[in-house]
Amino acid sequence: MSIIQPNILVFSPMQTDVETYAESIRNDGFMSVKTATTLDEVEKYLPGTEVILGWHFPTHLLSKPIASSVRWFQSMGAGVNDLIEDKSIPESIILTRIVNQFGTYISEYVFSFLLYIVKDYPRMRQSQLERRWDPFISETLKGKTIGVAGLGSIGAEIVRKARVFDMNVHGLSFSGKQASLVDCHFTPDQLSEFVKDLDYLVLTLPLTDSTHHIMTRDLLLAMKPKACLINVGRGLLIDEENLISVMQSGHLQTAILDVFETEPLPKDHVFWTMPNVYVTSHLSGPSTIEGVSSFFIGNLKRFLSEQPLHGLVDRKRGY
Amino acid sequence: MSIIQPNILVFSPMQTDVETYAESIRNDGFMSVKTATTLDEVEKYLPGTEVILGWHFPTHLLSKPIASSVRWFQSMGAGVNDLIEDKSIPESIILTRIVNQFGTYISEYVFSFLLYIVKDYPRMRQSQLERRWDPFISETLKGKTIGVAGLGSIGAEIVRKARVFDMNVHGLSFSGKQASLVDCHFTPDQLSEFVKDLDYLVLTLPLTDSTHHIMTRDLLLAMKPKACLINVGRGLLIDEENLISVMQSGHLQTAILDVFETEPLPKDHVFWTMPNVYVTSHLSGPSTIEGVSSFFIGNLKRFLSEQPLHGLVDRKRGY
Repeated sequence: MSIIQPNILVFSPMQTDVETYAESIRNDGFMSVKTATTLDEVEKYLPGTEVILGWHFPTHLLSKPIASSVRWFQSMGAGVNDLIEDKSIPESIILTRIVNQFGTYISEYVFSFLLYIVKDYPRMRQSQLERRWDPFISETLKGKTIGVAGLGSIGAEIVRKARVFDMNVHGLSFSGKQASLVDCHFTPDQLSEFVKDLDYLVLTLPLTDSTHHIMTRDLLLAMKPKACLINVGRGLLIDEENLISVMQSGHLQTAILDVFETEPLPKDHVFWTMPNVYVTSHLSGPSTIEGVSSFFIGNLKRFLSEQPLHGLVDRKRGY
Repeated sequence: MSIIQPNILVFSPMQTDVETYAESIRNDGFMSVKTATTLDEVEKYLPGTEVILGWHFPTHLLSKPIASSVRWFQSMGAGVNDLIEDKSIPESIILTRIVNQFGTYISEYVFSFLLYIVKDYPRMRQSQLERRWDPFISETLKGKTIGVAGLGSIGAEIVRKARVFDMNVHGLSFSGKQASLVDCHFTPDQLSEFVKDLDYLVLTLPLTDSTHHIMTRDLLLAMKPKACLINVGRGLLIDEENLISVMQSGHLQTAILDVFETEPLPKDHVFWTMPNVYVTSHLSGPSTIEGVSSFFIGNLKRFLSEQPLHGLVDRKRGY
């Protein structure tokens, strides 16, 4: 491989995106960049490719002879469960994901909804529509208890903001490394203990074998009846069928869902029209082209000088 | 005056409020508490009254012989321009206002609107109504510039929250005492310098001769065309007629108004229906009965032991 000019392939189903990424990479002096948006194009350009920057990539090709020069695959996203699930990807290919890029976006998203609900924005809006002077007293986030499941860079940023709102902050994590961030730390064997006192539960966990459908029916019912559930992690963290029946039974005041078992959320899905379910389109933590490009270029320089890459995926851990 | 049991009069036009205040004061062992909600009742109970806890009080009575025993008037609110304006109130009566009680409420109010706007909540909501998968990329508060006019306890709490959102924080104050809180501090002679770089301008100033109509037409036009103006101070800080014409000309993206020149805002006022004007009913910093009672009782104990009172009003300064 040429140390100075590795052969890079940028893949995403979005035509405009790949061109923008390629331009940004070339602007940093890396000239051997090809782009692909279809399976045909990937097959054409894979031979000789050493580095892939990809999103929704046809991973089954990575074990084929045409991919034999690939050494490193950088995902454009934070979640890489598609790459983990495809066991055919050779161990020799280094996998990395985007980290430390989503905390700002996702925490702003989370607090926009928490404040919307706690200040009773719908009532303020309705009063204006009716030209009604209505000086009601709202509740405050201050004094409420938030639980953050997953204390990676996203969870940590939510914790940081929760502090300035003077909330009680609980956390759950698998590794326990960041336990000191929160007032009360719980491990996965204490799930029902963790959820039972929360006013707000925010899921930022990665999707792994251990977290798949971690929000079972029993766990949903262990939450306070007036609690609010926010999922900015992965749709499959929640057993959606059970969430629907639990909410239809009147348990849980609100669900704020940015991720779903099936995305895009099908047109006829009941979530779209359930009262107290807020649906958004997997937009809370966007991979901005600017952010991903700069993360990738930083990693590329590390790769070329054989330094450890950021966002290295541990296939056993699952993220 | 009996040091142990001063004669206290609680006045507010709201019947239920005065009873709750009185009960809360009696619960703390102060048994000589009378309540009034009308002018007649005030006239009946004023003779012998030493301490008043009041809201929308008929201040012209304070100079009459029936009020000759009144030594201290505690307002239930933070703004006391009605007390300042009534020059007939004897200098011998100590005036206090509520301080340090509104930062939480008002800062949560301000950030609920800032996030609502920056995350483009209306678009998220509309997409859900149309069952449309719409993963757009919002802007962030991070990197935006907020200016806080007035750096008392309310302004300081807004600054504290703006910091955790990684905003650039500018501030304006008359005293300059809290200048170190902000990245750039401005004084009233630098008003147009202060406003010209702001994405968000939050007014938390008290109403005094110096701040009356401080937001002139020229100053509104000195703001960025896409800026957002938030008034949680007093309605008369803004020349409303000019705000209307400036916004109708397409200058300023949004105004969030919780206070008005005339309150309640008249039914036929154009603010109710102007696009990009958010009207709320002077509710951003509510005087909660619990908060005001506990502030008053703390001050009452200070009063009886001749310690300096909190929230002491300086008639010359105007608040």
